[in-house]
Amino acid sequence: MFEFTIRLDSLSVRPLYEQIYDYIKEEIQNGGLSCHERLPSTRKLAQYLDVSRSTVTLAYEQLLSEGYIENRPGSGFFVNDLEGLYKLSGEEEEETSETKQIKETFLYDFSPSGVDLESFPHNAWRKISRGLLMENNEDFYQLGNPEGEEELRKTIATYVHQARGVRCRPQQIVIGAGNDYLLMLLNAMLGDDRVYALENPTYRKAYDIMKILRQEVKTVEMDEQGIMVDELEKSGATVAYVMPSHHYPLGTVMPAGRRLQLLKWVSSGKDRYIIEDDYDSEFRYKGKPIPALQGFDSNDRVIYLGTFSKSIAPAIRISFLILPMRLMKLYRERGRRFSSTVSRMDQKILAEFIRAGYYERHLNRMRSVYKSRHDTLMECLKPLSNSVSISGEYAGTHLLLTLKNGMDEEQAIEAARKAGVRIYGLSSYYINEKPRRDTVILGYANLDEKKIREAAKILTRILK
Amino acid sequence: MFEFTIRLDSLSVRPLYEQIYDYIKEEIQNGGLSCHERLPSTRKLAQYLDVSRSTVTLAYEQLLSEGYIENRPGSGFFVNDLEGLYKLSGEEEEETSETKQIKETFLYDFSPSGVDLESFPHNAWRKISRGLLMENNEDFYQLGNPEGEEELRKTIATYVHQARGVRCRPQQIVIGAGNDYLLMLLNAMLGDDRVYALENPTYRKAYDIMKILRQEVKTVEMDEQGIMVDELEKSGATVAYVMPSHHYPLGTVMPAGRRLQLLKWVSSGKDRYIIEDDYDSEFRYKGKPIPALQGFDSNDRVIYLGTFSKSIAPAIRISFLILPMRLMKLYRERGRRFSSTVSRMDQKILAEFIRAGYYERHLNRMRSVYKSRHDTLMECLKPLSNSVSISGEYAGTHLLLTLKNGMDEEQAIEAARKAGVRIYGLSSYYINEKPRRDTVILGYANLDEKKIREAAKILTRILK
Repeated sequence: MFEFTIRLDSLSVRPLYEQIYDYIKEEIQNGGLSCHERLPSTRKLAQYLDVSRSTVTLAYEQLLSEGYIENRPGSGFFVNDLEGLYKLSGEEEEETSETKQIKETFLYDFSPSGVDLESFPHNAWRKISRGLLMENNEDFYQLGNPEGEEELRKTIATYVHQARGVRCRPQQIVIGAGNDYLLMLLNAMLGDDRVYALENPTYRKAYDIMKILRQEVKTVEMDEQGIMVDELEKSGATVAYVMPSHHYPLGTVMPAGRRLQLLKWVSSGKDRYIIEDDYDSEFRYKGKPIPALQGFDSNDRVIYLGTFSKSIAPAIRISFLILPMRLMKLYRERGRRFSSTVSRMDQKILAEFIRAGYYERHLNRMRSVYKSRHDTLMECLKPLSNSVSISGEYAGTHLLLTLKNGMDEEQAIEAARKAGVRIYGLSSYYINEKPRRDTVILGYANLDEKKIREAAKILTRILK
Repeated sequence: MFEFTIRLDSLSVRPLYEQIYDYIKEEIQNGGLSCHERLPSTRKLAQYLDVSRSTVTLAYEQLLSEGYIENRPGSGFFVNDLEGLYKLSGEEEEETSETKQIKETFLYDFSPSGVDLESFPHNAWRKISRGLLMENNEDFYQLGNPEGEEELRKTIATYVHQARGVRCRPQQIVIGAGNDYLLMLLNAMLGDDRVYALENPTYRKAYDIMKILRQEVKTVEMDEQGIMVDELEKSGATVAYVMPSHHYPLGTVMPAGRRLQLLKWVSSGKDRYIIEDDYDSEFRYKGKPIPALQGFDSNDRVIYLGTFSKSIAPAIRISFLILPMRLMKLYRERGRRFSSTVSRMDQKILAEFIRAGYYERHLNRMRSVYKSRHDTLMECLKPLSNSVSISGEYAGTHLLLTLKNGMDEEQAIEAARKAGVRIYGLSSYYINEKPRRDTVILGYANLDEKKIREAAKILTRILK
C-alpha cells in the first residue's frame, strides 16, 4: 500500500513528522484509511517520501500513543477500531501522554534541552516564597510596571555585569515570561521593515517564531569561528540573532577577532542590531569565561537576551532583554503598551534568590555537577576516538559527535534507539539548506554519571 | 513664550500628554530650553495647542516629578538646573515615582481600572501555595505544555460553563500571562490578512496593541444596544473585538436581538471571527446573568477571552483564550510554537483555588462588596439627578455620568481635581473620531463606602 502521497513542505515551520502524523490521522478520521488496514512499514514509507526513517517512526509513535494505530509485533502497524476516536481527535492532552510514552521507552535520553532538576534548590526557593507569602503585602497583587520590578532589574544589572561583563543600567532591562515572549515583544517594537539573519544551523525555535511573526528571515553560514560576517553583510540583513558565547547547537565559542568583525558590521549601517542570545553562558569548564558581546559594544547596538530557564529551571518563566539606550524611546512608545507577563511575586522571589546569594551558589554547584558529567562523558567516549570526532565540548550542557565510521545521522540514531538510548540529529537545526547528516548531539544535563557511563558504553559498542 | 510648536499626533498610540512631555524634555536636554527659563502656564499652552488643560497638567506633573522643571508657587513652572539630568533621562523608575506622586495628591481616586485588594483571599492563596511548595514535585519545575496545565484547563472549562454558559472542551483553552499577551498570540496565529473592528469607544489598550502589531483596524460606532452591526458589515472587517456582557467603558449590556445580529454577521462570511472579551462579566447586580456570546454560537466562530486579573487580582498574570474548534489546527501549527508564559506552579495554585471552591466564594464576596459600593454611590449621587444622567450602572465596577449642567468633561475633571477627587474622562476611549466631551467615568472598586460617601458629597457640590 503506497497511496500515502503526502505533500511534505520542508520549508514549513511544522516538523516533517507532524505533517506525516496529520495526514495519516486525517485519513483515518475521514475514512480514507479504514479500520484494521495495514500501514506501510516505516522503512518503506521513509524511502517513498524521501525522509529519514526516524521521522516516520516519530509520526507512527504519536499515532500509536493516541490510539489511532496499533503495533502488531511481527506484522506491522494497523489502523485501530474507530470507536471513540472522535473524542481523541486534536486533544492536546493526548499529546502529553505521548511525550511521556516516548520518554519512557528510552532508558537513556541525551536530550540537549535537558536541565538537572534534582539539583534545584527547593529549600531556598521554598523558604523565600514562604517568607514573601507571609508578608501579606497588598502591593504584590497590584499590576506592576510593564518592564518589571525595579528590584529585580537592579539585581540582574549587577549580576550580568559581574558574571557576563554586560554594561547596562537597570532601566534598560525588560523582564518577560520566557525568550519566546521577549522575541514577540522585540518584534512588536522593531516593526516590519527589518531583515533578520540567523546562523545556520541555529536554535530552531527562534527561526520558527520569526517566520510565524511574518518577518523576513535570512540564514547565514557558519565556519569554525561562528557566523561568517562577509555572508552576513551580503545577506542584506539588518538584525542578526547570534549566540557568540556558546552556539546552539554547534557549541562554537566565537573568538575575539570574529566578535570585533561582527561589532564592526553592526555599527557600519544605520538601524542595524545584534540580538545576543546568551542562553547558557553560565556553564564553561575550561579557560577563562568570555564576556558577553554586549560588554564590548561601544555603539549601543546589542540587544542582550538572558534567561533563568536554563540556569535555574525551565518552569521559571523569567527571561530578560537588555535594550540599547537608542531603543528606549521605541520601547516606551510600543513595548510599554504590553502589560508585564511575570507576576510580581515571582519577580520578588527571584530577586531575593539572587540577592541573598542562592543563585551564585546554585550556579557554582551546577557548574560542578555539569562539569563532572561532561568530563565523565568525554572520558567514556575515548574508545571512540577513531570513529567519531567530538566538538562543542567544555561549555554548556551538550556536545557533538561527528561520525567517521561510515554511518550517517539516521543510522546512528536508529541504532542507538534500538539499544534504548536516545540521541539527536544535527540536521534538524539546519534551515533551507542541505543539512549535514554526519553529526549527532548528546546533551548530558539530565543524566547522572552512572547513567552516562552505562549509555556511553552502549554508544561505544554501536558507533565503533 | 510660545515657541512650543509641538506637532501633536492625535492618531498616535501615545497619549497627547506624553507627546508634550517628550517634546519639553527633549528641549531641556538639548538646550532648546535653558536653565531657569519659564514655561507657559498650563492654561495658555492648552489653549495654544488646542488640547485640554488636564493634558498639559499631566505632562507638567511628569516633568516635575522627574526633576526637569520646578513649580514656584505664584510664579509658574521653570526649567531646573541641568546638573545630573543625564542620569534621569529616560529612566523608567522615575516614572514609577511619578505615578505614585499623582496617586498621593488625590484623596479619592475613582479609577475605573481599580480592584479591591483588601478582599484578596490571602489566607486561602497562601495555604494553597504553601501546600504545593511542600510537595517538592520535580515536575513543577519542568517546562509545561505551551497551552497550559491540563488540570487548570479542565477547571476553567467547568467554571466558564457553569458561570458563563460557555461550551468548550479543555483542549480549546490556551492559558497565557495576561490579555495583552494573548492578543499578541492570536495575532501571530491569525496572520496579516485580517481586518479588525473595535467598538468606538473601546478598551483603548486593545486598540493600541493591534496598531502596534501592525494590523488593519477599523472602528465601528455604537448605539445604546452596542456595536452597530450594519456599520460593522460596511467596515469590511473580518474580526470583531467586542465586549457584549458589559462594554468598557460605556457599560452597555448587549441585548439578545443584537447578539443574534452579531452572530449572523460572523457566520455569513468566510473566515470571520468574534473576539469576545468577557473581562468583568462576574459582576452583575440586577437581573439575570446574561451568558456569554460564545454559548450561543453554533457556528464555531467566537474566540472567548477571559481573565483572572479583574476577578482575583491584577498581579495574577493568568488569562485564557477559548478557541473555536476550527482554529485548533492553526493553533497547533503556529500558536504552539510559543512556550507557556505562566509558571506551572502558578497554574496549579489557581487550579486548586478554583477546584476547592475558594474562587466561587471569593466571587460571591466581591459581588456583594462591589454591589454595596455601587448602591452607595448611586444613592449618594441622587441629589445630582437634575445635573447628570447615569449610565452603565448595575454591572461591573464603574458607571458613567453624562453632564447636563453645562460643564464639559475637562471642566468637571479639573473642578474635581482641585477638590482632591480624581475622576476620568470618557473622551480618551474614543478613537479617530470627535469624541464625546460630556461624560465622566467613576470606578468604585477601590474605594470603601465611607470614602465613596465623602467623595460623592464633594462631587454633588461641584457638579450641581
